[in-house]
Amino acid sequence: TLAAPAIAQTNPEIKWRCASSFPKSLDTIYGGAEFVARRVAELTDGKFQIRVFAGGEIVPALQVLDAVKDNTIECGHTVSYYYVGKDPTFAFDSAMPFGLNARQQNAWMRHGGGLELMREFFAGYNIVQFSAGNTGTQMGGWFRKEIKTVEDLKGLKFRIGGYAGTIMSKLGVVPQQIGGGDIYPALEKGTIDGAEWVGPYDDEKLGFNKVAKYYYYPGWWEGGPQVSFLTNKAQYEALPKQYKVALETACAEATLDMIAKYDVQNMNALKSLVASGTQLRPYPNEVLQACYQAAIETYEAEAAKNEKFKKVFDQWRKFREDEYLWFRVAEYSFDRFVYAAPPLASKK
Amino acid sequence: TLAAPAIAQTNPEIKWRCASSFPKSLDTIYGGAEFVARRVAELTDGKFQIRVFAGGEIVPALQVLDAVKDNTIECGHTVSYYYVGKDPTFAFDSAMPFGLNARQQNAWMRHGGGLELMREFFAGYNIVQFSAGNTGTQMGGWFRKEIKTVEDLKGLKFRIGGYAGTIMSKLGVVPQQIGGGDIYPALEKGTIDGAEWVGPYDDEKLGFNKVAKYYYYPGWWEGGPQVSFLTNKAQYEALPKQYKVALETACAEATLDMIAKYDVQNMNALKSLVASGTQLRPYPNEVLQACYQAAIETYEAEAAKNEKFKKVFDQWRKFREDEYLWFRVAEYSFDRFVYAAPPLASKK
Repeated sequence: TLAAPAIAQTNPEIKWRCASSFPKSLDTIYGGAEFVARRVAELTDGKFQIRVFAGGEIVPALQVLDAVKDNTIECGHTVSYYYVGKDPTFAFDSAMPFGLNARQQNAWMRHGGGLELMREFFAGYNIVQFSAGNTGTQMGGWFRKEIKTVEDLKGLKFRIGGYAGTIMSKLGVVPQQIGGGDIYPALEKGTIDGAEWVGPYDDEKLGFNKVAKYYYYPGWWEGGPQVSFLTNKAQYEALPKQYKVALETACAEATLDMIAKYDVQNMNALKSLVASGTQLRPYPNEVLQACYQAAIETYEAEAAKNEKFKKVFDQWRKFREDEYLWFRVAEYSFDRFVYAAPPLASKK
Repeated sequence: TLAAPAIAQTNPEIKWRCASSFPKSLDTIYGGAEFVARRVAELTDGKFQIRVFAGGEIVPALQVLDAVKDNTIECGHTVSYYYVGKDPTFAFDSAMPFGLNARQQNAWMRHGGGLELMREFFAGYNIVQFSAGNTGTQMGGWFRKEIKTVEDLKGLKFRIGGYAGTIMSKLGVVPQQIGGGDIYPALEKGTIDGAEWVGPYDDEKLGFNKVAKYYYYPGWWEGGPQVSFLTNKAQYEALPKQYKVALETACAEATLDMIAKYDVQNMNALKSLVASGTQLRPYPNEVLQACYQAAIETYEAEAAKNEKFKKVFDQWRKFREDEYLWFRVAEYSFDRFVYAAPPLASKK
């Protein structure tokens, strides 16, 4: 069924303000909202205009959710795990530690029942949300000293956000909540011992390689963090059907585009970082195992006391196990072979 | 800059016919074109309508490229490696054996220089193409007997399409070009010894598990095959700007959506196949190594005689190596840990 052609002439001019949680300097993640705004304008003949404001410009970076919920602004572009202080259930909308990679997150959202569960949860905040970006697996952070054992985590002042901080504190880490712009001086002065942000491209922009030598991987707390576009429910529902579709499809393209952009930018930045002296280090398996156990304890404790969390967790956990079964077969075995193979060229 | 609002009233009604290379029964890959058509209609108030025809309905399944090139139809939905007989350069637009996975293909296309190179190549066929789907890494096919050594490939009649057939023939395989609907009877009668198609969901639909016991992985010739939406260049260029954008963004969403849909459907189908007795087998490393060497020889021989191929191959090969460097770090180490870890639950 198609929309009635007559609507075209009567489509109203609509102007929305979008509060981003990110600074303009982080052009890829901030750029996701600009991408959505541009596409929506192009798709509606300029009639539906979204103006994007950087974090802190009209709304504090980490208060985007409240501003959208309260209709202070019509929409925002943020990462839902920023709001785990309100309810850890928000983390499913972005990334759960040891959770889904970017493709699995998209699969869960689009065809695995995730969107329905998260829409129901967000409705409690007067919000209709969309996936509008993903960074892919992030890096595990910068440290001034090497991490060799679980013991090395004890007392470590580590800048880390959201749910992962809770999990790491079980192993003795002292999580530090510090905004992006304040990390560099804190790391330089030694106020903190380490910091995680995103990945090579963004981290190099923030200059962390100049004040910390060891760059760990993977960011086990962010296998594929989704960036979300939040809309005030009443505002969204008042949109003409065509504008709703324009917004939905623009957000989907933004998801695809941000991953692709990071995958190219991180590739280039990684080479540049290593050339400038950064030492790449995998987290020791012992550390990952300990964090994994701490994550299980954290999730099960939350599920025992939080019905909303439990509802999503039970479905998500089953999906995760089943999806891993499949990914282990074709996808992972392909990656494993080609990553281990020599260059695709005859030996000279 | 925004399109002039005045255009809205004058947008013409446009009807296009789209020839798919796929049967309607393969709802996910065929559904990609339906997805594009529905979105484009919704985004243009029903004014830009694309009617999708299944493979063979108005154009033979494997002649979609010619029909679009010759303006017999305005557009088509197909896999570009079907046309490697004309020029192996087409394979870069879908999948090269031992090439990119789905995410890397999207990164190459959107931000890695791939789209520009492929658009230049397709312009020689009067075509402007878009990514409009991807299956993810496919399975490596069904066999009635186990493959344990490279010797076991000799004389094997294996249904396999495109460039991979050329590569496998170097190892003694006798590649068979057989349409989807004819594979089952050929495998049942023993006319062929094995067949590859897509993955668990589509393969189960075609019933291969009933006539072959061993299901191999990975499909090393298709790490992330893109499904493409081809438009006749003159037809595309005659579209109003808004319709062009609608088509582009709809194709992008179709790419994201098809991957997500396959990732959920394959997950479920794999469990069902294994429950019904299918034996999963990894290709022996020796076989993969031999195929890898054969691929290198094939590519270098082609590059030596085909300037168009060489131009894309040189850029693509560099991109592939650099992208693998990055994926080996965060993405692969995350996947490796979580796939090897026990279920995300305390031991009972």
